[in-house]
Amino acid sequence: MNLKPLGDRVIVKRDEAETTTASGLILASTSKEKPQSGIVLAVGEGKLDKDGNLIPMPVKEGDRVLYGKYGGTEITVEGEEVLILRADDLFAVYTD
Amino acid sequence: MNLKPLGDRVIVKRDEAETTTASGLILASTSKEKPQSGIVLAVGEGKLDKDGNLIPMPVKEGDRVLYGKYGGTEITVEGEEVLILRADDLFAVYTD
Amino acid sequence: MNLKPLGDRVIVKRDEAETTTASGLILASTSKEKPQSGIVLAVGEGKLDKDGNLIPMPVKEGDRVLYGKYGGTEITVEGEEVLILRADDLFAVYTD
Amino acid sequence: MNLKPLGDRVIVKRDEAETTTASGLILASTSKEKPQSGIVLAVGEGKLDKDGNLIPMPVKEGDRVLYGKYGGTEITVEGEEVLILRADDLFAVYTD
Amino acid sequence: MNLKPLGDRVIVKRDEAETTTASGLILASTSKEKPQSGIVLAVGEGKLDKDGNLIPMPVKEGDRVLYGKYGGTEITVEGEEVLILRADDLFAVYTD
Amino acid sequence: MNLKPLGDRVIVKRDEAETTTASGLILASTSKEKPQSGIVLAVGEGKLDKDGNLIPMPVKEGDRVLYGKYGGTEITVEGEEVLILRADDLFAVYTD
Amino acid sequence: MNLKPLGDRVIVKRDEAETTTASGLILASTSKEKPQSGIVLAVGEGKLDKDGNLIPMPVKEGDRVLYGKYGGTEITVEGEEVLILRADDLFAVYTD
Repeated sequence: MNLKPLGDRVIVKRDEAETTTASGLILASTSKEKPQSGIVLAVGEGKLDKDGNLIPMPVKEGDRVLYGKYGGTEITVEGEEVLILRADDLFAVYTD
Repeated sequence: MNLKPLGDRVIVKRDEAETTTASGLILASTSKEKPQSGIVLAVGEGKLDKDGNLIPMPVKEGDRVLYGKYGGTEITVEGEEVLILRADDLFAVYTD
Repeated sequence: MNLKPLGDRVIVKRDEAETTTASGLILASTSKEKPQSGIVLAVGEGKLDKDGNLIPMPVKEGDRVLYGKYGGTEITVEGEEVLILRADDLFAVYTD
Repeated sequence: MNLKPLGDRVIVKRDEAETTTASGLILASTSKEKPQSGIVLAVGEGKLDKDGNLIPMPVKEGDRVLYGKYGGTEITVEGEEVLILRADDLFAVYTD
Repeated sequence: MNLKPLGDRVIVKRDEAETTTASGLILASTSKEKPQSGIVLAVGEGKLDKDGNLIPMPVKEGDRVLYGKYGGTEITVEGEEVLILRADDLFAVYTD
Repeated sequence: MNLKPLGDRVIVKRDEAETTTASGLILASTSKEKPQSGIVLAVGEGKLDKDGNLIPMPVKEGDRVLYGKYGGTEITVEGEEVLILRADDLFAVYTD
Repeated sequence: MNLKPLGDRVIVKRDEAETTTASGLILASTSKEKPQSGIVLAVGEGKLDKDGNLIPMPVKEGDRVLYGKYGGTEITVEGEEVLILRADDLFAVYTD
């Protein structure tokens, strides 16, 4: 199945353990908005600015990202939980 | 009967089972805003940007879409329930 | 009496039965915002965009329209109840 | 006394009977925001748009207007109650 | 002492009697936001528009003005109570 | 220590007595937002407007200013309490 | 591990003692929003303005900054707590 986000939305697959990422990044549980990490599965084409030009997306498929827990909407695609969120809800990209 | 959405609104026919789509996509029930899937029946002409140019619609008639449960307004047209929502309330398009 | 809406407002005469329109369209009673149907009696000249150009109105006198129940203000003109609402509160136009 | 509204404000003298206007227009009492009718006594010069150009006022002195009950501020000028409201709070102009 | 308002603010000295102005204007006590009258003591240079041009102030020193009761901040300068408010909180200017 | 405000922020040292300023200005205690007076210690470079041009700051180091009590954030720098606030939270500048 | 903030976000390492900074700056505990100090570890590329031009970031890696306590999100990276916040949540930069 092919799932294409619209506008400036991205689809992210969450890392399995919520407190430790694959790369050793540990997310603090005391923060107001517990951050989460995952990998980008698909990105939209981006939003248009006021002059009708496309604002390019800040991430691409395969990027590892941090994002806030309460952003986005969870869906299950072919047995796998994924998250749809807006590009602005992504905090950072990281590499090992 | 011919029903034409105004501005950036679209008319969507909801998939019948709310938790599994025709293509096997299963929507998680634990999410804050339960997503729903459907097929686009009609699209408006789009909104104007600040310079008076038409912003093209991101979907077309026949597209399969995901959207948030609480967006839009339900109406029943000739015995069939449909939903009128704004283009920005659509999350993603998908194909099998 | 001549009643001219200002800006992007329109005057709509509601269809008499609230759940079934003249053209057989049945409005669902379970929706959060019960939609209503009617016919456009008069339209304003439209709003100005940021550059001072007039944004044309999406409907004209005689159009049949769907709109949200809680938009607009009811008034009675020469014994007939009509509704004044903004163009953006109109959802769709329809023909039989 | 000379009273000049500032910006896009207008001064309106309310019709005496609140439910029936001079021209036979009857305002419904069941509406969420009871509309009122009156005659325009004075208008401001208008607001500036983003480019610093004056947006012309949609009404002029002597126009009969409909407006929402909760817009504006009542003052009494030389024994006569008048209302100061913004142009956008006016719904429609009418003639007999 | 020299007190210069910043941006689009003005300094206003309130008329002494709150219900009757020097010019015989009587302010209604039943309105939601009781209006007040006064005389302008000082005006700021104005706000900049989006292009960086100064929007001129709609009033000048010595103007008699009406304004809403809840706008602005009261201060006492050399024993005299004055009010600092934004130009947009002024409703009208008047002359006898 | 050198403390440089960012954007359109300023650092202000509050006058010691809260109800009477050095220049004899007395601040009313009955106002909704009790104003305060002080002296500007440092100013940011200003905000950018929509075209990317710097909007100049309305005050400079050494200016005496009035500001609202609830704007800004207090910090203590080398034993001295100062306030960081935005330029728009300043009401007026004054001289003796 | 390499952690790159997105848009106008920065990553800040908090100073260890919350009330006294390395440079002797003491943060008042009575303020509504207790400020905190730290050092910038990484900065995003900045936001785009309305014309699609990049607004440069006001701080760079290594800058010492003051920021509000409730801005941003805490995460722990390789055993070290850091904060992700937007450039506009930074109040000031300082040097000894």
